Amino acid sequence: MLPTVDVLRGAIVESRHRVSVAVVDAGGTLTARAGDPDLVTFWRSAAKFFQAIPLLTDGAADALGITDAELGVACASHNGEPRHVELAASLLARASCGAGDLACGPHPSLAEPVAREMAERGEQPTRLHSNCSGKHAGMLALARHRGWPTMGYADLGHPVQARCVAEVARWTGVPEGAIGLGVDGCGVGCFALPLRAMALAYARLGARRLGGVGSEAREAAADRLIRAVTAEPFLIAGTARLCTEILAASGGRVIPKVGAEGVYSAALPELGLGVAVKVEDGDFRSSGPALLAVLDQLAPGCVPVAEEWRKPELTNTRGMTVGWLEAHVPLAALK
Amino acid sequence: MLPTVDVLRGAIVESRHRVSVAVVDAGGTLTARAGDPDLVTFWRSAAKFFQAIPLLTDGAADALGITDAELGVACASHNGEPRHVELAASLLARASCGAGDLACGPHPSLAEPVAREMAERGEQPTRLHSNCSGKHAGMLALARHRGWPTMGYADLGHPVQARCVAEVARWTGVPEGAIGLGVDGCGVGCFALPLRAMALAYARLGARRLGGVGSEAREAAADRLIRAVTAEPFLIAGTARLCTEILAASGGRVIPKVGAEGVYSAALPELGLGVAVKVEDGDFRSSGPALLAVLDQLAPGCVPVAEEWRKPELTNTRGMTVGWLEAHVPLAALK
Repeated sequence: MLPTVDVLRGAIVESRHRVSVAVVDAGGTLTARAGDPDLVTFWRSAAKFFQAIPLLTDGAADALGITDAELGVACASHNGEPRHVELAASLLARASCGAGDLACGPHPSLAEPVAREMAERGEQPTRLHSNCSGKHAGMLALARHRGWPTMGYADLGHPVQARCVAEVARWTGVPEGAIGLGVDGCGVGCFALPLRAMALAYARLGARRLGGVGSEAREAAADRLIRAVTAEPFLIAGTARLCTEILAASGGRVIPKVGAEGVYSAALPELGLGVAVKVEDGDFRSSGPALLAVLDQLAPGCVPVAEEWRKPELTNTRGMTVGWLEAHVPLAALK
Repeated sequence: MLPTVDVLRGAIVESRHRVSVAVVDAGGTLTARAGDPDLVTFWRSAAKFFQAIPLLTDGAADALGITDAELGVACASHNGEPRHVELAASLLARASCGAGDLACGPHPSLAEPVAREMAERGEQPTRLHSNCSGKHAGMLALARHRGWPTMGYADLGHPVQARCVAEVARWTGVPEGAIGLGVDGCGVGCFALPLRAMALAYARLGARRLGGVGSEAREAAADRLIRAVTAEPFLIAGTARLCTEILAASGGRVIPKVGAEGVYSAALPELGLGVAVKVEDGDFRSSGPALLAVLDQLAPGCVPVAEEWRKPELTNTRGMTVGWLEAHVPLAALK
């Protein structure tokens, strides 16, 4: 069966999102799949854990006194809610930088209810409200600590971006030269990789097990980031956002991270597995139901979030329910 | 080759939209296709010409003095710009109705620049700003003229909706009982049909040739609607909208109509052809480039719109160009 998330209007399938999935263990074995686990696409914001790890391994967090909550926001695609903004600002301050140093542009909150409330309050989003402001503040802190110029930190040629590529290469097992580079929605580098490599990185992240030279500091960094986001699930996303719901409902048994263009990654530390999901067409509405369909097969009952996350309803401009989404993403077990 | 609209970030395909197309002549022959021309999906707003025809055939337009410009807005998915709103209001007045009688809910303008300008002026969209307000006003005029209750005109069980189903059946050649019904984004009925049947209806519309009992009034209605939208291309959509651009640039040689969830239909009267396009996943950004790729093969040079419509750029929150869309929709000729 073709793995899809179907969009039904009444009882009729109106549209169909094709899905590919890789499930990999920390040893690099593909244990299950749907669609094409070798599909290459950009990791987008699902790479943020790995863009934050250098803050720890390179000593910036210790030297600048960065808190766990600030680390949580550095890994986040957050809603720009007051706590997110405060933490991004305090992380920026540790880098002796201000909001004007951020290279990310403003945009409305990723959570529609939050965006609407901000608009109703007449509140314009700033760069600090960008879902990526914590990541950017972290990159500025890394530049400050390493003695690199903070100016231009987002450009692909800057040492901060090169450092992130190197970190992504370590965790994914893909050589730096084989990682496709693009410019992300917020202006920094982003990484084109096979789903299988993304899943491996999350398996290793969750297992805190990497191996090789310098792995101990990296494994410790993974442990601290996971503890940071699990201690306060609100940080990684916010109100009415699936990443926060999954972290909270699973009690940290699943470490999820959404990305733009239909990307989702997750670690399942107890099972030693990593998951990477891509909705082929880049759709956002369907990536969450697709991930949940995968998690429900790998760890039944592990993610007791509300049914509306699994089967979101579609409403029209009159507020009527006119349809819903249905994920059909059967995993083919390989091991 | 798989017909797709590819989303590139830098030189790398990040996401991919699959496309199906039917090209049919007024005699019902499938003359070209891409993907699956028998794909069943909802026609959504691409059905609006056929929902407006009863206004003419049933005598409402003559009896109530409905103008060509009002007919144009009845066929539109408009931007809610001042002229659209005025015309929807004047059409409503001919039905002795007001904005409070409209069943459609408000939403921001379909053109992002128009939506932004309205928001910056602090202007809240009303029901009259709904892209469907002209269609709804027309349905109220039909109900008034036919002596049906105006209350509940949007409900599937109301005679107005039954009348629309009957009209759609005539033009598409699909029996009423075989048309799947759903509730549209604005609350009225919408029609699930094979792409092939949608294309046939547009071929007949453009040719003003239907045949069968009662066809003369229907053909005259088609002619008046086409003249109405061609005389003032702004009406059918508005500023920065592809339907308006195609109508204007082609000088009426192409009569296009967009629908939600990745649907596009068009008539090419000179060639006697109708076209129906569906982006499988329901995506909006890619349906226009897909339609243009089809039109460029059927009638090269016929639609001299700006290149940005064929190959839209993707910008990020910093305003940088980070990618673009590329339509690869080769038609397989069948005749």
